[in-house]
Amino acid sequence: MVGVMRVEVQRRFSDLDPLGHINNVVYLDYMQEARVAFLAALRGGLPAEWTQVVVTNQITYKKPLHLSPEPAIVEIWVPRVGGASYDFSYRVLDEHGVETAVAHTVMANFDPDTESAQRIPEPMREKLIAAMDQAREELEGD
Amino acid sequence: MVGVMRVEVQRRFSDLDPLGHINNVVYLDYMQEARVAFLAALRGGLPAEWTQVVVTNQITYKKPLHLSPEPAIVEIWVPRVGGASYDFSYRVLDEHGVETAVAHTVMANFDPDTESAQRIPEPMREKLIAAMDQAREELEGD
Amino acid sequence: MVGVMRVEVQRRFSDLDPLGHINNVVYLDYMQEARVAFLAALRGGLPAEWTQVVVTNQITYKKPLHLSPEPAIVEIWVPRVGGASYDFSYRVLDEHGVETAVAHTVMANFDPDTESAQRIPEPMREKLIAAMDQAREELEGD
Amino acid sequence: MVGVMRVEVQRRFSDLDPLGHINNVVYLDYMQEARVAFLAALRGGLPAEWTQVVVTNQITYKKPLHLSPEPAIVEIWVPRVGGASYDFSYRVLDEHGVETAVAHTVMANFDPDTESAQRIPEPMREKLIAAMDQAREELEGD
Repeated sequence: MVGVMRVEVQRRFSDLDPLGHINNVVYLDYMQEARVAFLAALRGGLPAEWTQVVVTNQITYKKPLHLSPEPAIVEIWVPRVGGASYDFSYRVLDEHGVETAVAHTVMANFDPDTESAQRIPEPMREKLIAAMDQAREELEGD
Repeated sequence: MVGVMRVEVQRRFSDLDPLGHINNVVYLDYMQEARVAFLAALRGGLPAEWTQVVVTNQITYKKPLHLSPEPAIVEIWVPRVGGASYDFSYRVLDEHGVETAVAHTVMANFDPDTESAQRIPEPMREKLIAAMDQAREELEGD
Repeated sequence: MVGVMRVEVQRRFSDLDPLGHINNVVYLDYMQEARVAFLAALRGGLPAEWTQVVVTNQITYKKPLHLSPEPAIVEIWVPRVGGASYDFSYRVLDEHGVETAVAHTVMANFDPDTESAQRIPEPMREKLIAAMDQAREELEGD
Repeated sequence: MVGVMRVEVQRRFSDLDPLGHINNVVYLDYMQEARVAFLAALRGGLPAEWTQVVVTNQITYKKPLHLSPEPAIVEIWVPRVGGASYDFSYRVLDEHGVETAVAHTVMANFDPDTESAQRIPEPMREKLIAAMDQAREELEGD
């Protein structure tokens, strides 16, 4: 059962900006990678990004992230599940485990035909709730 | 005097994801473009991104943004100026003027040597305050 | 009738690498933008990228390309049309008209179902040949 | 001693285009990752990209590359060493070892002050030649 998932994200030279830091925009790419991995694990199959939309992204940068051959780590978990929407929380860690950013996303289940939100299918919703419960247990155990 | 600045951002084929939408991550790239243009106008010179850092980004997506040969428009203004930090607000509009996202950034003045925040130099701070006042006037006039 | 098309491409802060140059990879993004614009003009409708595949890309970099609020210019034309494939040639110019790169692409018409090349539909092929003839006339006139 | 180096590159959701393939431009990003890793291994230290420039890139695409949690593999080696320039060759493999692209880059040693090529420093040149000899041996052994 997935709770708090640790997703390794390989940094790229092209993620750097002229200051020599991983650019602030790129962190959202790392978060997206974590979501794709999380949803794939949850569904036990292929990436499920296609029918989800991101409603909000919120990120606070704490420390610069530099280039390293070691992967950055994105910790991702589900802190809330609603009827047609649910949330992701993230911590972005460097190769030494230093927290470089914390972030939050509101997701909505999306009907590509009507381009509007719709209730999360029940089997998926149950999995999200189980993942939320599992994450709470793990985080309280810290 | 710059108040609410309208920055045209050319969309790229590579901004699209498999759903055929401008990917949620890419909006932050558009916001960055708007910041660079805004700061260049404010300083009357070269892009000033180098000595600024983004502390938080927050974005709410309202409508999908599709590919178009017409530029997307990012409206950007300064809603707050502090001692060592200040904020940007944004509206991302499609080619028909439809609001597709609203966003907010907290910026901090950054000393690359110490990698920490420092008080905004006074001439820059005065310009930011003038831009904030100008934006308020424009937005009240709406 | 389209011959040598001049496509304006807006440079982005995120196109820069730590050296402060537009990164070598990004030029291919600019070329892709030029192709999308060219094919849209040729077809008189929506971007036609979906059913085309790039077989080869070849680029020679001549001068560094820097960030500028002025667009870079990609000159693009069709130097060859075959049965199932055709070519694009490009010149990438900075805001002063200086040639920063020359490039060449071999394209193949693509059947997404079989994931293989197929003969270019005749109406499209005629347009490509007309564009090639027009480009030759323009380039000889230089 | 490095000869033919196998560099793992993690694919990202954002590497996909609307056709659902890794976009043709992105392969050059993978090649760049391989170069950075190769040069870091060769120098036994930090990425050496800063003082190198890419003179030409040439790539032939063989098969579509799809999204996978498994890394793509870029095989990279040095097939030629000149006085001020040298070459890289690449094979881009999917997670099943299928060759999806072959590519070639001409690199030049670069003086950022004069923005022109300069002779490769001798210790670096010796390492490049040793890497070339090692690659030849490995490739003949195939």
